[in-house]
Amino acid sequence: MSASPSVVLLAGGAGGSAFAVGLRDELRARGGELTVVCNTADDLWLAGLRIQPDVDSMLYGLAGVKDTAKGWGRAGDSLRVAAELHAWGVGWDWFELGDLDLGAHISRTSWLREGASPTTVLARLQARWRDEIGATLLPMTDAEVETHVVIEDSGDAGGAVTIHFQEWWTRYRATREPERFENPGMTGARPAPGVLEAIARADAVVFAPSNPIVSIGPILAVPGIRDAVAAAPGRVVGVSPIIGGAPVRGMADVCLRVAGVPCSADGVAGHFGARADGGLLDAWLLAEEDAALAPAVASLGIDAHVRPLWMAGPDLTRALAADTLAAAGF
Amino acid sequence: MSASPSVVLLAGGAGGSAFAVGLRDELRARGGELTVVCNTADDLWLAGLRIQPDVDSMLYGLAGVKDTAKGWGRAGDSLRVAAELHAWGVGWDWFELGDLDLGAHISRTSWLREGASPTTVLARLQARWRDEIGATLLPMTDAEVETHVVIEDSGDAGGAVTIHFQEWWTRYRATREPERFENPGMTGARPAPGVLEAIARADAVVFAPSNPIVSIGPILAVPGIRDAVAAAPGRVVGVSPIIGGAPVRGMADVCLRVAGVPCSADGVAGHFGARADGGLLDAWLLAEEDAALAPAVASLGIDAHVRPLWMAGPDLTRALAADTLAAAGF
Repeated sequence: MSASPSVVLLAGGAGGSAFAVGLRDELRARGGELTVVCNTADDLWLAGLRIQPDVDSMLYGLAGVKDTAKGWGRAGDSLRVAAELHAWGVGWDWFELGDLDLGAHISRTSWLREGASPTTVLARLQARWRDEIGATLLPMTDAEVETHVVIEDSGDAGGAVTIHFQEWWTRYRATREPERFENPGMTGARPAPGVLEAIARADAVVFAPSNPIVSIGPILAVPGIRDAVAAAPGRVVGVSPIIGGAPVRGMADVCLRVAGVPCSADGVAGHFGARADGGLLDAWLLAEEDAALAPAVASLGIDAHVRPLWMAGPDLTRALAADTLAAAGF
Repeated sequence: MSASPSVVLLAGGAGGSAFAVGLRDELRARGGELTVVCNTADDLWLAGLRIQPDVDSMLYGLAGVKDTAKGWGRAGDSLRVAAELHAWGVGWDWFELGDLDLGAHISRTSWLREGASPTTVLARLQARWRDEIGATLLPMTDAEVETHVVIEDSGDAGGAVTIHFQEWWTRYRATREPERFENPGMTGARPAPGVLEAIARADAVVFAPSNPIVSIGPILAVPGIRDAVAAAPGRVVGVSPIIGGAPVRGMADVCLRVAGVPCSADGVAGHFGARADGGLLDAWLLAEEDAALAPAVASLGIDAHVRPLWMAGPDLTRALAADTLAAAGF
């Protein structure tokens, strides 16, 4: 076992970036290496700009410029440009585009328009804060595979309507009952350059405590990534995003219900499955509140580790990261 | 003659928008109507955004939100986004993109990307301030006919380099001697919808005191516009942008030299020529400082009107507009 492990983290936005900071700090102290594979299914075109909510949360979080109170966006941001856009009816008035944040959106869009790939764009974005970040961020894919939500329309016309995940999540706060989630273009997508290689040489693969369905789910759905994780030489360890039967943050319970997955720590573990049984996980971290579920997880063939999961501050988050590495054998 | 004249103004940015405000105020008082045909040859793609310096100066000026001290951009603007772009090396660090200003650039680019024409985009931009503007703004064309500057390269490699007008004007302050100006795509361009119609039904066509070569020049170079002005039923009146042998603002002297036009009030009048003699002008306003040149202008077959041309404040600007209308017979 390497004393300086190389770890690949699969992660979404808010919870994922909070966890990534702790993992980065812990690996930095050990001389290890972190590669983060970010969910890009939340991405969208808005106001002519390419927005990548999860990627930016991860970028800002690791760079130390995130608004940690909100869990996304830049600290100290303002809304001067947004007020202009709203005056012209451009964009969504319920979807905040901060001024500092727009700097990233404009830069990214400019580079994409010049022909750069999302991978290259993300490399340029993180280069600005290379020392602070101390990790390598990769998009899960260079393809556009946005998550769309199919909703049974209760209006007079009947039938189903399809909206972007961000509209469902941010505008409707997941209150409109989805029929299913779709990722158009996913079957033709390929993992972004470096993703499969990073998994294949990692000493451990970690699932962040992110939404299992719309954050971790799309990453694993990129053709090739699930197989790469299943075949990873290092241990695959996940951190439950469900504590005491409820999501730590966000509306993951609705997503789980749509996917037919019980909203519980053992339910999510079962959703990912045991590697020994054709699934993905070798180990799973449950909250102390869910200690009673540990035997159920173990019965799936997944090592169950009961640990404090609340990331209430840097010390606890880093301790969780250390516990995660311990579950991976480090 | 109509007591409430309908006027078409051909104009560039700073000087053009200052003059347009006076003309709008004067026509508003008379119940007249103003259509402004804006130069769009200054336009450029920058940071993935479509920037229209002259159009925006006109828009902001008439809407009353322009930074009148600078002569362009929005009053009270800030540079939060620009600092972000610069940190990523996006855009030109010598070309200011204000936060409020970016609201227009992003909105415009968003609409263009959706397939809207520049004419439609400008209609949407001005709709926000319809009451304040009190005029109809049209781009000269919906085609992209940017002004490029061909410069004899004095470096080791020799040969000519071509740069965008904005780089030559704003970065180099017109200090690099041009060989010529080019408007790629101009021969295939068409006047924007409404331009020819406005000229054909106008009681007067006015040339603002804008740069004759790179502001008024490109408007007249759009195939069809010169002919329409020459055939206009109303009188065609110009205001000299040269006072005492020097441009009122900007580096028009360099542009005139490149075009082989004397940098003088009569030189520019001669450049546009008399309508009676195959040119465009029926009348020309010269500054009092240039009274001695009036006979030379008259000898061209152009009515010479010596008037105060300095637009030092709203009252003088409006008086100049009234003088211009008088020269047009109103």
